[in-house]
Amino acid sequence: MKQIGVAILGFGTVGAGVAKGLLENRDVLRERTGIDIELRRVADLDTTTDRGVALPPGVLGPDAAAAIADPAVDVVVELIGGTGVAKKFVRAALEAGKPVVTANKKLLAECGAELFALAAEKGVDLYFGASVGGGIPIIRALRDGLVGNRIETIYGILNGTCNYILTEMEKAGKPFDEVLADAQKLGFAEADPTLDVDGFDTLHKAAILAALAYGFSPDVHALPVQGIRGVVGARDIAEAKALGYRVKLLAVVKRDDDGLELRVAPTLVPESGMLGSVSGVFNAAMVKSDLDDWTLYYGRGAGRLPTASTVIGDIADVARALAAGTHRPFAVPVSASPVRVKSLGESRSRFYVRLALKDAPGSLAAATAAFAASGVSIRSAVQRGAGEDGFATVVVLTHEAVRSSVDAALGKIASSGVSGAAPVCLGIEG
Amino acid sequence: MKQIGVAILGFGTVGAGVAKGLLENRDVLRERTGIDIELRRVADLDTTTDRGVALPPGVLGPDAAAAIADPAVDVVVELIGGTGVAKKFVRAALEAGKPVVTANKKLLAECGAELFALAAEKGVDLYFGASVGGGIPIIRALRDGLVGNRIETIYGILNGTCNYILTEMEKAGKPFDEVLADAQKLGFAEADPTLDVDGFDTLHKAAILAALAYGFSPDVHALPVQGIRGVVGARDIAEAKALGYRVKLLAVVKRDDDGLELRVAPTLVPESGMLGSVSGVFNAAMVKSDLDDWTLYYGRGAGRLPTASTVIGDIADVARALAAGTHRPFAVPVSASPVRVKSLGESRSRFYVRLALKDAPGSLAAATAAFAASGVSIRSAVQRGAGEDGFATVVVLTHEAVRSSVDAALGKIASSGVSGAAPVCLGIEG
Repeated sequence: MKQIGVAILGFGTVGAGVAKGLLENRDVLRERTGIDIELRRVADLDTTTDRGVALPPGVLGPDAAAAIADPAVDVVVELIGGTGVAKKFVRAALEAGKPVVTANKKLLAECGAELFALAAEKGVDLYFGASVGGGIPIIRALRDGLVGNRIETIYGILNGTCNYILTEMEKAGKPFDEVLADAQKLGFAEADPTLDVDGFDTLHKAAILAALAYGFSPDVHALPVQGIRGVVGARDIAEAKALGYRVKLLAVVKRDDDGLELRVAPTLVPESGMLGSVSGVFNAAMVKSDLDDWTLYYGRGAGRLPTASTVIGDIADVARALAAGTHRPFAVPVSASPVRVKSLGESRSRFYVRLALKDAPGSLAAATAAFAASGVSIRSAVQRGAGEDGFATVVVLTHEAVRSSVDAALGKIASSGVSGAAPVCLGIEG
Repeated sequence: MKQIGVAILGFGTVGAGVAKGLLENRDVLRERTGIDIELRRVADLDTTTDRGVALPPGVLGPDAAAAIADPAVDVVVELIGGTGVAKKFVRAALEAGKPVVTANKKLLAECGAELFALAAEKGVDLYFGASVGGGIPIIRALRDGLVGNRIETIYGILNGTCNYILTEMEKAGKPFDEVLADAQKLGFAEADPTLDVDGFDTLHKAAILAALAYGFSPDVHALPVQGIRGVVGARDIAEAKALGYRVKLLAVVKRDDDGLELRVAPTLVPESGMLGSVSGVFNAAMVKSDLDDWTLYYGRGAGRLPTASTVIGDIADVARALAAGTHRPFAVPVSASPVRVKSLGESRSRFYVRLALKDAPGSLAAATAAFAASGVSIRSAVQRGAGEDGFATVVVLTHEAVRSSVDAALGKIASSGVSGAAPVCLGIEG
């Protein structure tokens, strides 16, 4: 039986998970791949903290360069994170002709082109399946299962913190701040939750999925992103629920002949559909492709062992290729005909609009006239009795419309003097 | 750019879909794999019927053996079906040293060991990703993404005909026969629906998934199977719904230290969960594994283009290996420690039991005493007023129990003389 030696760089949360998986499931991997994958080196500056994994004697050491150079190491697994030493060691491994597996989304996003070029030059593999989606095989699906499909739509619930918060806000009817504080206590949210709750983590993941689907590198800084903090309130979650929808922080990637929609925003999805059933810290990606129609991939989008599972899947891929004396290159493809990214105003969907209208004759007529004048067709409208502030709540669901037309209608309503607080406008997908 | 030539044997529904996909998405495959995959031969005895796919001139012919022997053909795709000529041609291709992709579940189930052995002897690949799940990458998930995991549970909604019928029975409150007739008119059910509605198709698929997960060949004829015909009525669908459940024809594969549960039966799943949200002809497989926890794979489990999508994914895998001058063997693994399959009586789950009890003092007490005496703990019990027949309906949900204990309780109730029509007993999972 062929033996493949593995070095893990970075003995943190995921590193310890990968070590545990490789050690405890070595027999399973042998049975399924016909290869004996052995953990031979773990490099981390901290060689004393107990990570709850019993490494064989002599495996753990502080010197990553030595681990890479060790002739017993065939595959290098980078789990340090960031773009500093992580990049240095990935380059060193590739230069040494050793394939690399990484879960480093930031490294891939910022240095991907350079590193894929180096891997290609050296004829070795650089795999990154766990960089998006943790334990969910969405990168693998785009690479392998859907390889023969043109991708039309990707919807992603890609951030466990946000999905947990939204699920709890709906269940308990609690405001964002309170649920965030609970999530922080439970370890489901970072002390500084900005990257998660303001949508940037989801956006970075969406950009990588779009790159894989369409062979181009979107400029993340130019993409529309809206998080859940300060945007989604218990009020809209309840209104959506009454109409049969749930609010999810959704990555939307939709292509038509005019170009590509690529954005992140709180979005209504049908409560009884697959996306509406993704709750708590679980994540999912739902893909529409020309041959396979709708497929969905669901699981834990983060966490020590689920992420380790995906990293180990990549290690097994690389090991199978090495054992066959070859490699199986996979890089972000580069399309000959790059796709145009649409502006937010060009995007098309159905919309949920909550208006505060003066409780006076003609208010609703003025609002609906504004939609009509902007070419937005209303599917349903519900008006509730006015509150103490003298404003009635009107919830409008539109038929499919162009975002700029909806914005124009909202502008007309604002300037007509019939409205109170600023309207809430969320897309409806799925 | 490397070129790989493909021959399709069998120009039926899926064959035409694969041809269409390879022809129309050749550019996509080139961009993503760096390989030019060309359809060079299509063999079918019927060379005249229009399948709605325009093949290049000279590609279609009646002679499968000639297609296999053609030096321009590098990969042979078997889409004839059955175990007659299909087996002959698969053997011929492997003998000729050419990798084979097939979607033939029956061939795999009946002749898998022999064909995998031949493929291994000849050093070529035999891929079968579309043999279970159509457009859903569940075989791929077990092979690749979850390769480093011990599989604990697989739940499968694996038959589109049954799921369509159950969904429509719930939506319309119609009886089985009526919905089946509609489904046949719409092309969602065969004229002879036995394989589908009596559960055998689901069982065969479950057996293949269990084989992949545990490295053994279950004896399909010895496994417990219950379909939906004559088992699931509108009544139980409504009772389940009132309790927050849906009835699905579920493949259950569950392993613990005592052995493996492997069965197919109508089963209650939570309405708001992922499995409960799989409706219509869509299918899903949900897997619990030791590292990755729960993952789910959803899509169209059958159909021309979804199945073609998976076949093309396999073709691309084989082409990548061929282009690298190697192969990437994948067979059903053979475990050194085969798992014991439990009897139905040993299986453990929660249960839904609907009883008809005489509307007389002591009936409910006798029934609940029977559960208690058999060691089955009741989670909830609802009694409805008696019907005109003088029997009251009692719906019992149990805590987790052993099936044989529940059967013992039902036996006691039957012999106590308090019950009318035979009870309905369905498992609850998820």
